[in-house]
Amino acid sequence: MKCRKCGAKASVNMRQHKLALCKEHYLEWVPEQTERFIKKYNMFTRDEKILVAVSGGKDSLSLWDILVRLDYRADGLYLGLGIDGGIGYSHESQRLTEKFAAQNHLKLHIVDIEKEYGQPIPLLSDISHRGHGKPCAVCGLTKRHEMNRIARDLGYDVLATGHNLDDEASVLFGNTLVWEGDFLLRQGPVLPAADGLSRKVKPLCRFYEREMAAYAIARGIEYIYEECPFAAGSTSIYYKELLNQLETTRPGAKLTFYLRFLEARKNGLFQERENRELNLHPCSNCGQLTSAPDLCSFCRMMEKVRLAE
Amino acid sequence: MKCRKCGAKASVNMRQHKLALCKEHYLEWVPEQTERFIKKYNMFTRDEKILVAVSGGKDSLSLWDILVRLDYRADGLYLGLGIDGGIGYSHESQRLTEKFAAQNHLKLHIVDIEKEYGQPIPLLSDISHRGHGKPCAVCGLTKRHEMNRIARDLGYDVLATGHNLDDEASVLFGNTLVWEGDFLLRQGPVLPAADGLSRKVKPLCRFYEREMAAYAIARGIEYIYEECPFAAGSTSIYYKELLNQLETTRPGAKLTFYLRFLEARKNGLFQERENRELNLHPCSNCGQLTSAPDLCSFCRMMEKVRLAE
Repeated sequence: MKCRKCGAKASVNMRQHKLALCKEHYLEWVPEQTERFIKKYNMFTRDEKILVAVSGGKDSLSLWDILVRLDYRADGLYLGLGIDGGIGYSHESQRLTEKFAAQNHLKLHIVDIEKEYGQPIPLLSDISHRGHGKPCAVCGLTKRHEMNRIARDLGYDVLATGHNLDDEASVLFGNTLVWEGDFLLRQGPVLPAADGLSRKVKPLCRFYEREMAAYAIARGIEYIYEECPFAAGSTSIYYKELLNQLETTRPGAKLTFYLRFLEARKNGLFQERENRELNLHPCSNCGQLTSAPDLCSFCRMMEKVRLAE
Repeated sequence: MKCRKCGAKASVNMRQHKLALCKEHYLEWVPEQTERFIKKYNMFTRDEKILVAVSGGKDSLSLWDILVRLDYRADGLYLGLGIDGGIGYSHESQRLTEKFAAQNHLKLHIVDIEKEYGQPIPLLSDISHRGHGKPCAVCGLTKRHEMNRIARDLGYDVLATGHNLDDEASVLFGNTLVWEGDFLLRQGPVLPAADGLSRKVKPLCRFYEREMAAYAIARGIEYIYEECPFAAGSTSIYYKELLNQLETTRPGAKLTFYLRFLEARKNGLFQERENRELNLHPCSNCGQLTSAPDLCSFCRMMEKVRLAE
């Protein structure tokens, strides 16, 4: 297989795009495509301040790398979750994130959940009894809350996360299997700013997971290879496997599923609803939008944790 | 496992309903449930004339059996497709259908496609060059057209087909993977009568395929075990397999997928459109509703076939 641009030996073959590229041209192509998606979905401009949520994994470090190469004003945010799992998971991912930031002279904010709230994620999960014995629900809730809080407090216009196509298609698949209307109305590359929340964007949402791995490796980005030790057996991984099966027999099926969804929604497939109809209002403690009656889920959880201490 | 109703040894265990029944109570339960679905979705009343599309398979013969046992006015329609496939498929399915009708003293209409249109399905498919070398597209088109035509010509109020949950979930899955808006707005247990088309109903749409097989066997209905010889490798079978995988790890997933879809649509998830917006109008030859500009797809195909002769 030869590179379409220069005829050299191709390093990456993307069946769904019928496109093969050598390493050098792949490293050009990915930022070009990202720029195209940023413009297409009106994600942000070069005047805006972007906070990139970085976990030390291939997607978020690549995203940060790409945005900086594209001359966007992007700082990093690392959330220390306090997950060990016998492999020093959080410790190692923080080390790699800090190393990446230092090597590239980038500004990195670090927030340690244990220092901030007294307990690391696994203990917050134990104490609050959320999520059927797995810390994933508490972790997701905490990360969302903290990313929103810090982006707002530090005055960032935009919060960017490294979700790739596999992530997005898996979430969409899960929400579609049970027809979760509220999620189907909101999931997408951009969640607009609302009532004190920064805009949220996913510039990598059209790249396959393996494309991002290829980018990180080709760029020589040192990232944490291990999945979170708690991720094994999760529903999202199960859905990813099902979608990968589909993709194997029907190359492009995953991308089509996600893009046709966005297109159909844009063309009015769904009946839009107002925030009021979704019953969203500011949490009485932290001010973030919530559908819960008084406190948002995060503040309710933290209240429970404080009472248990 | 014991029958929930009488404590005898259970013959059928339905994990998704957490319900096990003996043969006798299963044979009561299936018609009771069917009656419940007929009422719930306002399918038809005992005053209306129903035409049941029967293929000689377990679903359609069971449907006919159930409707007659429930005292509905149900006649049968068998379409002779002229498919042999080395196993005399059409011949055998017609023989079993006629036998069932005779044993139960039921009225059966038989329409032979070759007699009606000069060619059996496989040749219509060859001549018209539709469907990538497989006759399935032509077969589906022809069956839909003929069922509509005959129900209207013979003055039936309702056309009932034996689609089970696996059929419906598979179609829904395929349409969802590419977000086919028009289908998502219309697919369901009832398609209302419109412009000369009888109402179409699927009274078995909430039964799993294996539940219908269990019913047919328990009732001693002789049906054709073979799938259509052309069905192997079809997309709908592939989707059924994927959904079966999902069902194995998450019992009830298939039913939830279908029912939550119907519920979400009823609750206004989708933006409804008028026939006019869907661009449906009567075919200039046969009068059936179509989205094609002049002739409907069936009449266009038949014109092509006539020209080729």
